[in-house]
Amino acid sequence: MKIIIAGGDGFCGWPTSLHLSKNGHEIIIVDNLSRRKIDLELEVNSLTPISSINKRISKWFQLTGKKIKFFNIDIAKNYQRLLNLINQEKPDTIVHFAEQRAAPYSMKNSKTKIYTVNNNINSTNNILCAIVESQLDIHLVHLGTMGVYGYSSADLSIPEGYIDIEIKNDNNENIKKNILYPSDPGSIYHLTKTQDALLFAYYNKNDKLKITDLHQGIVWGTSTDETNLDEVLINRFDYDGDYGTVLNRFLMQSALNYPLTVHGTGGQTRAFINIKDSVRCLDLAIKNPPKKNDKVKIFNQMTETHKVLDLAKIVSELTGSKIQHMPNPRNEDQENELRVKNKNFIELGLNPTTLKKGLLNEISEIAKKYIKRCDPEKIPCNSYWTSKKNV
Amino acid sequence: MKIIIAGGDGFCGWPTSLHLSKNGHEIIIVDNLSRRKIDLELEVNSLTPISSINKRISKWFQLTGKKIKFFNIDIAKNYQRLLNLINQEKPDTIVHFAEQRAAPYSMKNSKTKIYTVNNNINSTNNILCAIVESQLDIHLVHLGTMGVYGYSSADLSIPEGYIDIEIKNDNNENIKKNILYPSDPGSIYHLTKTQDALLFAYYNKNDKLKITDLHQGIVWGTSTDETNLDEVLINRFDYDGDYGTVLNRFLMQSALNYPLTVHGTGGQTRAFINIKDSVRCLDLAIKNPPKKNDKVKIFNQMTETHKVLDLAKIVSELTGSKIQHMPNPRNEDQENELRVKNKNFIELGLNPTTLKKGLLNEISEIAKKYIKRCDPEKIPCNSYWTSKKNV
Repeated sequence: MKIIIAGGDGFCGWPTSLHLSKNGHEIIIVDNLSRRKIDLELEVNSLTPISSINKRISKWFQLTGKKIKFFNIDIAKNYQRLLNLINQEKPDTIVHFAEQRAAPYSMKNSKTKIYTVNNNINSTNNILCAIVESQLDIHLVHLGTMGVYGYSSADLSIPEGYIDIEIKNDNNENIKKNILYPSDPGSIYHLTKTQDALLFAYYNKNDKLKITDLHQGIVWGTSTDETNLDEVLINRFDYDGDYGTVLNRFLMQSALNYPLTVHGTGGQTRAFINIKDSVRCLDLAIKNPPKKNDKVKIFNQMTETHKVLDLAKIVSELTGSKIQHMPNPRNEDQENELRVKNKNFIELGLNPTTLKKGLLNEISEIAKKYIKRCDPEKIPCNSYWTSKKNV
Repeated sequence: MKIIIAGGDGFCGWPTSLHLSKNGHEIIIVDNLSRRKIDLELEVNSLTPISSINKRISKWFQLTGKKIKFFNIDIAKNYQRLLNLINQEKPDTIVHFAEQRAAPYSMKNSKTKIYTVNNNINSTNNILCAIVESQLDIHLVHLGTMGVYGYSSADLSIPEGYIDIEIKNDNNENIKKNILYPSDPGSIYHLTKTQDALLFAYYNKNDKLKITDLHQGIVWGTSTDETNLDEVLINRFDYDGDYGTVLNRFLMQSALNYPLTVHGTGGQTRAFINIKDSVRCLDLAIKNPPKKNDKVKIFNQMTETHKVLDLAKIVSELTGSKIQHMPNPRNEDQENELRVKNKNFIELGLNPTTLKKGLLNEISEIAKKYIKRCDPEKIPCNSYWTSKKNV
């Protein structure tokens, strides 16, 4: 298949591009290098030394003989270049990773809120609009987030996108409907993904577009079989307070012999998936598109759930680091439950890499190996959810 | 009260500005004159001769002694100027009309789809973001649309924004929830209003903003007591296929002795409200803000429902015009029912102007009076909902 990967230079996009290339697909990366530019803005770097996109692609060709094309296009701003590329390449599939993806960054200040909304909504709408205008039969695969759902309550597992409900009508009779699970986003970033869902539902209904929306949990891990081939192919490892996920920040703290900082009680439950499973899920989703008149296909792309405090305990056991509780910068409940259905990917054959099995490797191969590149001042989260605390 | 009216030069914004000014409020209009620019793009004019915004404001001052300030700001693009204005003027209320508001225009081509999404989402987000950054206690009143709901079915009246539902949990027990009525937008324009609703819910939850969202039906009528004071104050009357609503196009056709063109069977039911009632509703909404920790207040701003064919029959009876059926350019059901709850405004004292009572005046005072300004070629709708028909 010919696949355009929008955002193919990023943390999920790059290993996905390599995995799909290895599996025989023709890959075209579109990226405006925004993630690298945000590093400059935040004055932080990936812990792992990432090479330029052209060096990455040359190395991949040298090692595997497989060509990946690259186009530097800001798809949120330059609709015409995106459309021209689609008309010229005629892809079977477009994978859409081209969104600002950090919740803390999206809450940092007005500028980052506005950028996140503007970039994410326009990039999604431009891709959808371009598929319609091209009149090609393209399957769109979008990377969404579990965070669109909020958290579960009262023994209700989060379904894969849709839920059956009953409503009382004017005659007090029960009517059954199947609706998109009501969204409850926890940040501006998550909000944009709930707005994306409405775009998908609309273009699916009006223009019969074939769309798969992957509601992904928090990705952990850095390397895949493909990025492991050479250090030039290495993937990002973000540990800063904005882009570093909780697990990465624990790994850095332990490598520095700092205490592991838990926000609030650590009773927040989150869904997780390893990067190796994430790239496999993308492959499975691409191979299993919806049929022409199907509604938007929604998969929960996660393999396990953990409370933040339990994660800290796992890392603490492996490394001997202490645990320290801190005030929570987020506007959220102290404790929450989270049960998630993920039958769709399991049925397609996903065999998860568990956190307990893969974590030690992250500590020795990534955190300890590159610890000299770490700026410890960047680990704490300085983005606050309510305006008065932001500086 | 001091009130900023974003989009205060438009069809709803201008008569609302005058009505609120007459009622003693201090009015600041913010507008980028986009509606006038779209007239240039579509090569069409309001049937009524509208004066420049500064002439309008001067005439109002001359007649009433009341000052209205005007700032030409594109609030979707220039966040900083919007924020500065809010910080300088410290309004009690912001009324947000600053969105592209025609469904056919939003479906015309890729450029208008992209403009509608970009303008509408960024203008809403920028206002919300600026209110948060200003740290002022400002009530936001937004003009939304009945079209966010889709249409009712199986004896279910459309509620005012929220609905009680029951869901089965993992133990097969029924759980009750109150959710935003699931959206089902019929065009890109309507879609943006469903995305707005998610922005409102989020900023209300996270930042405790006080927000009222008015889900308005199709507005008919041109004049209010205030715009009637002088021809320089006259309001827009759009009759073209993109911005003219169904009733206005019937009025033009009858004034030209053309047949009234009904799309499809005319079995589409729509909700309506007179412009005089619309400005009164705004006044009522402003006077009755939500309390500090209330969720977003949602009102259905409509007074009656009619099938399109029945509207044609009413106009036909008044004028003697014939009725002609045409293929429907919209992607929608041929027939639909629509029952709507509008208890909130009725309880606040709204006394509706009915269509049968006000229509004759529209015919004699507007359609017949200005018929020489009409370009008959602009009446048909040339925007198609599915791409292959668009030129």
